[in-house]
Amino acid sequence: MKNIFIASTSTVHGKGYLEYALPALKEFFKGVTEVLFVPYARPGGISHEVYTNKASEAFAQIGIKIVGIHNVENPKEAVGKAAGIFIGGGNTFLLVTQLYRNNLIDVVKDVVSKGTPYLGTSAGSVVTGVSMQNTNDMPIIYPPSFATFGLLSFNVNAHYLDPDPSSKHMGETRATRINEFHFVESIPVLGLREGSWLLVQNERITLKGGLSARLFLQGKPAEEFPNETDFSFL
Amino acid sequence: MKNIFIASTSTVHGKGYLEYALPALKEFFKGVTEVLFVPYARPGGISHEVYTNKASEAFAQIGIKIVGIHNVENPKEAVGKAAGIFIGGGNTFLLVTQLYRNNLIDVVKDVVSKGTPYLGTSAGSVVTGVSMQNTNDMPIIYPPSFATFGLLSFNVNAHYLDPDPSSKHMGETRATRINEFHFVESIPVLGLREGSWLLVQNERITLKGGLSARLFLQGKPAEEFPNETDFSFL
Repeated sequence: MKNIFIASTSTVHGKGYLEYALPALKEFFKGVTEVLFVPYARPGGISHEVYTNKASEAFAQIGIKIVGIHNVENPKEAVGKAAGIFIGGGNTFLLVTQLYRNNLIDVVKDVVSKGTPYLGTSAGSVVTGVSMQNTNDMPIIYPPSFATFGLLSFNVNAHYLDPDPSSKHMGETRATRINEFHFVESIPVLGLREGSWLLVQNERITLKGGLSARLFLQGKPAEEFPNETDFSFL
Repeated sequence: MKNIFIASTSTVHGKGYLEYALPALKEFFKGVTEVLFVPYARPGGISHEVYTNKASEAFAQIGIKIVGIHNVENPKEAVGKAAGIFIGGGNTFLLVTQLYRNNLIDVVKDVVSKGTPYLGTSAGSVVTGVSMQNTNDMPIIYPPSFATFGLLSFNVNAHYLDPDPSSKHMGETRATRINEFHFVESIPVLGLREGSWLLVQNERITLKGGLSARLFLQGKPAEEFPNETDFSFL
């Protein structure tokens, strides 16, 4: 029994923090009055406190109280007792390093596998996969491992971006990067566009948000799958 | 005594592989007839052989023979004896992993510090810095360390890209990523635009190619420096 909300981004262009997702999150967290927030990824380097306040303001709109994990005495115990968990975006390398330092990898995986509702946005979504190897982030810190929660049997590429045919920049496109990954690893990779999310309920993994997603399998051409696809075949 | 050519990219838009840099490379490698090529970064996942052939074709135009390090019996010994070294671009995580696996970090640093001419492009330029922490690449493989040659006392961000004010994509800009790095590390970062290179000669580190470069120092606003700047103050 799993209840996981895996969002490509926290924010879509022109809207406030989490705004586009609030109606769906209200439904997702039905009956939950307090959510444990993990601000470790620190987007733009902001402090844990500032980041937690930002999450609090958004969740207040759907009547949910946010508790920052940096403010609890025993983070591991807090995860064990949480009625809901939200891991926010930012830098995936920093997030994963902090999750390992605080011994939270196993406990989060355990409680979420048993049904604690989990929301991830961006980096917080990447860590639901087998590994963080398809993050777009800069390796600003060296984590003890790239292995993540493995709540999915595939990896997530958040903020998935189609190549810009007019670009004169010679850096690799997102698709090229994911294809390079498949020369060394066989884990499937799902490119989730901004505004999309996966809703995991028990064994069903449904694409939501109205957009298609791009699936990369080793040795095969990438393929588009429409909104409402069930990715549990992966 | 150092002779290092640190290029942001191998290829600029609309030109062939290394084409824009060949006149400068002819001068740089004056008197050298054979260069040892390190194809470990495998751009787009191409094989060591295919990549080496590509480098050979470009260097043939300036009368230099290329030997692929994957074809020599003892890579470490080959580095020690090389008249010139070229580490090509591709995936920095893969490159660094292979450099460690083949015990090449120390020997490259040693011979290049003593004067063996070294050309790096993209990932091959990133590794001349203190660490690979400012690469733009996807972490497709877990390297034993992020520490690199340290031939410079700063890090290089290759393919440096200015923010696109018209973009509706919510992923982090390059500048945001580098600023996040400076919340955890103090190493200066030089953003080198495509078409630029650093020419290291003895203690002088000159910006070449006609473009300005963007310097990021911890706790300070980023600053532009013009072509021909000597960055040895870093």
